[in-house]
Amino acid sequence: MDTLLEQLKRYAASGALPMHMPGHKRNTAAFPWLAELGGALDITEIDGFDNLNDPRGLFRDLEARAARLWGARESVCLVNGSTAGVLSAVRSSLERGGSLLLFRGCHKSVYHAAELVGAETYYLTPEIDRALGVWGSVTPEAVPAALEAHPDVRLVAVTSPTYEGVISDIRSIAAACHARGVPLLVDEAHGAHLGFSGFPESAVACGADLVVQSLHKTLSSLTQTAVLHICGNLVDPADVRRNAAMFQSSSPSYLLSASIAGCVDFLEREGGAAADRWLELLAHFRENVRELRRIRLWDGGSAFAFDQSKLVLSAEGLTGEALMDILRERFGIELEMAAGRYALAMTGIGDTEETLSRLAEALVQLDNVCETASPSFPVQDFSLPEKRLSIRAALAAPGAFFPAKEALGQVSGEYLWRYPPGAPLLVPGEVVDEGVLRELGGNLRSTRGGAPERIFCVTEY
Amino acid sequence: MDTLLEQLKRYAASGALPMHMPGHKRNTAAFPWLAELGGALDITEIDGFDNLNDPRGLFRDLEARAARLWGARESVCLVNGSTAGVLSAVRSSLERGGSLLLFRGCHKSVYHAAELVGAETYYLTPEIDRALGVWGSVTPEAVPAALEAHPDVRLVAVTSPTYEGVISDIRSIAAACHARGVPLLVDEAHGAHLGFSGFPESAVACGADLVVQSLHKTLSSLTQTAVLHICGNLVDPADVRRNAAMFQSSSPSYLLSASIAGCVDFLEREGGAAADRWLELLAHFRENVRELRRIRLWDGGSAFAFDQSKLVLSAEGLTGEALMDILRERFGIELEMAAGRYALAMTGIGDTEETLSRLAEALVQLDNVCETASPSFPVQDFSLPEKRLSIRAALAAPGAFFPAKEALGQVSGEYLWRYPPGAPLLVPGEVVDEGVLRELGGNLRSTRGGAPERIFCVTEY
Repeated sequence: MDTLLEQLKRYAASGALPMHMPGHKRNTAAFPWLAELGGALDITEIDGFDNLNDPRGLFRDLEARAARLWGARESVCLVNGSTAGVLSAVRSSLERGGSLLLFRGCHKSVYHAAELVGAETYYLTPEIDRALGVWGSVTPEAVPAALEAHPDVRLVAVTSPTYEGVISDIRSIAAACHARGVPLLVDEAHGAHLGFSGFPESAVACGADLVVQSLHKTLSSLTQTAVLHICGNLVDPADVRRNAAMFQSSSPSYLLSASIAGCVDFLEREGGAAADRWLELLAHFRENVRELRRIRLWDGGSAFAFDQSKLVLSAEGLTGEALMDILRERFGIELEMAAGRYALAMTGIGDTEETLSRLAEALVQLDNVCETASPSFPVQDFSLPEKRLSIRAALAAPGAFFPAKEALGQVSGEYLWRYPPGAPLLVPGEVVDEGVLRELGGNLRSTRGGAPERIFCVTEY
Repeated sequence: MDTLLEQLKRYAASGALPMHMPGHKRNTAAFPWLAELGGALDITEIDGFDNLNDPRGLFRDLEARAARLWGARESVCLVNGSTAGVLSAVRSSLERGGSLLLFRGCHKSVYHAAELVGAETYYLTPEIDRALGVWGSVTPEAVPAALEAHPDVRLVAVTSPTYEGVISDIRSIAAACHARGVPLLVDEAHGAHLGFSGFPESAVACGADLVVQSLHKTLSSLTQTAVLHICGNLVDPADVRRNAAMFQSSSPSYLLSASIAGCVDFLEREGGAAADRWLELLAHFRENVRELRRIRLWDGGSAFAFDQSKLVLSAEGLTGEALMDILRERFGIELEMAAGRYALAMTGIGDTEETLSRLAEALVQLDNVCETASPSFPVQDFSLPEKRLSIRAALAAPGAFFPAKEALGQVSGEYLWRYPPGAPLLVPGEVVDEGVLRELGGNLRSTRGGAPERIFCVTEY
C-alpha cells in the first residue's frame, strides 16, 4: 500500500487544481522557501485524505497500525505534540471531577492539565539521586499510601522514562492504581522506543491505561508529533478522542501526519533491527568512554530500570552547563540540556556509528585536558515547598510582583519552571522558601517572566 | 538579516553534531521520506534558536514584526492553528469567571473554549441569507441588548469573515462592547489578508481586542500556523501568552515556525503588491463568469462587507455537493467545501492567472451543459434549539445513545457539527427538535460519532 507521503506526492503531481486551503496553493514558484519546508505537499482535508481529528479512512488505518505496533487498545495520532496527549488524557479522566496524584517531576503540561480541569494536586516525590541531582524512580509503595490519604484521586500520572532516562516500575504502580479502580497515565514522551529490541518494556505493556509518546524525541518523526495510547477498560476512548480534538488544530498538518505515517511504516518494517543497531552503538559508546577519569557516564544509579539511550554526562570540576558549552564551542557538538552537575546527550534512532564515535572522541580528548581542580556545585533543591492554595485558586487570586527576597514566605501566584526539562520548582499556591530562592537563576523560567529578580505572589486569599 | 529558513539551512550545513532531539538527527539518508517533508532542517530549541513559547530572541523579533505588519499591540505566533489562538484568547478572558456572548456560527474551537472554562453561553443570531442559506453579518445593534440582558458577559466573540466571506461591522461591535468594558474577540481565521491593498479592513484596525488569524488559509504559510493579535488595553498580554503556552506543544516545529517567518518576510516585502495582483485576478474572474446563466457567483448579499476572495458558487438544479463533485470529477478542480445550495472555491495569495482562468473556463463549460430542471433544495435550518443546560453541565450529566427519532424532545449530551465549516447545529444542553432531525445526514458529524442514526442524550438532570 502507498504511504501517506506517496499519496501526497501523487496528488501533487495529478494536476488537480486546489481551490481550497492552504492559500499558498502549493505554488513553490511564488514562495520558493516553502519548497524546502515540504510546502509542495501541504494540503487540507480534501476528498480521499480523511480527517485526523475524526479518523474514518487512512488515519483510522494508521492509528490501528500504531495500536498494533505498541500493543495498545487504541491509539490517537497527534500533531500538537505530547502536550496535546497529556491535556487530552488528564481532561478525559478528570472533567467530571476528582483530584490528580502526580510525580512532582512531571512535565508542565500535566500541571497545565490539572489547572484546566481545576483538579487538586497531590505529589509523588521519589528519592533524589544525590550524586547527580535528578529524580529517581517513583516507588510503587508510595502509591497505595497516597491513594489511601486522598480518596478523591481519580488519576495517577507518572513520567517514565524521565528526561534523564529513569524508568519506574509501571507494572507495580499500575497494579496499585487498579486495586482502587484509578487509571494510570504514563508520560512516556521520552520513551517511544521502549519495547523495541532490548530496550526496557513500554508502559503500554506494563498495564498503564493512558500512555503518551513523542514520536520525534527518540524516533524518526518530525518535531511536534506524538501518539496517545489508550489501554485497558478504565478509560473510554470516546472521551479521550473528544478531548484530543479540542486540543489540536482543526487544520492539522499533513506534513506532520505524513511523518507519523513514515515513522510507523519504518518501525513495522525494521523497528526491531534499527533498535538492535542503536543498542549496539550505545554499548560500543559506553565501552569507549568507560576508562575516562574525569568524565562520567551515568548508569541510572538505583533506578528501577534505565533507558540507556540517554547519555547523562558529568565532568569533575565542571558544571553541566560548562560541559555543554565546551562541547559546543570546542567540538561542534550540541547537547540536549544541562542542569546542575550534568549535561544530557540524547541519542535517537537516527544516530550512527559516526555520530556516537565523534561524541566519544570528543569526550576522550576533553577528559585529558579537564582541570583536576574540583570545585563543589550545589545539588538542586528538590524539597517540596509548603502548599497553601490549589493551583487554580492561586492563579485566580489577586497578586503582584515582589523582589525575590521580599517574596520569601509569601504564596506564589505563578510557576517557576526548570526549563529544560520543564518540571516545576514552585507551583502556584506554594510558599516561596529559602530552597526556592537558592535555585533562582540558571535554567529557571517563571510564567510571568520576572524571575530571577521578581516573583509574582498572591496578595489576598 | 537572515530569514529563519536561512538560519536553519546554515545550521544544518555547519556540521554541528546533534546530540539532542529530534531523534531522526536530520539523517535523511536513513529516513529518505523525511527529506521531502523538510526533515533536514528540523531542530529543537538549541542555543541561538530561541523558544516559541517563551520568545526572547528571534521569535520576539518575528512577533514584533507581525504586530507592526497588522497593526497590533502584540502578536503571538502559533503552530497549533487558530484553534490554539481561540482557546488562549477565550481562556485568558474568562478563566476568572464570566459568560461568553458569541455568534452562533462560531467555529467549534470557540465552543470548546467555553466548555473548558465552564462559561455560560449566549448567542448572537444574525439574519440568514435565504437565497444561499448562510449566516449574514452580526448586527452591532444586537450587542448592547444582549449585554444588557446578560450582565455577566465578560467576552464577546464574532467570526468575521465567515467561511463564506461575510464580514461584520467590527468597528461598531467593538464600540458596543467597549461601552460596557467587555473585550471583543474576532475569529479572523479566514481573513489574515484583510487590510492588504483593497481588501476590507482587518478587525485589528477596527478596534477588536483579540484577533485570531490563520496564516495558511489565505496566505502563504504552512497549514496549522496562525497568529493571535492582542490590541488595546482591556486584555493583559501576559495572561494571553501564559495560556498560549498551555495549548501549544512544548516542542513547537521549527518548520512551521520558519513558514510563519517566511510569510511575514514576504508580506513585509510585497504583501501590498501581491494583494493588488490577487484582487485583479478576482476582478477578472468575476468578469469572466458574469454572463453565466445557471451558475451564480455570490456577492455577499446584504453583508456589511464581503471578502471577495471567497468564491461562493451555486448552480441551478444542483446541490452544492453535486457541483463540487462535478468540478472534481470532470474538471480536476477540488473545492474547499459544499453545503446545501452552494459550494465554496477558496482563493489564496498563491493563486495565479492560470488557476483562476482554469476555474472560470470550467464554470463556463459547465454552465452550457447544466440541466435546466430546477429541483428545490431545502435551505439549512438555522433556528436556535431550546436551551435547557449549560454545555458543561450537559456534558457532565449521565447520558445514553438514542435512535434519532426517539431523541426528539430530549436534551442533547453532545455536539452536532456542520463540518465544514465546523459550526454547531446542536450544542450540548439543547433540545433535539424537528429542525435538527431534518438536518441529520449530509456534512453533519456528531462528537460521539453516532449521527445520523443515533444521538447521545442526557438521561438525568
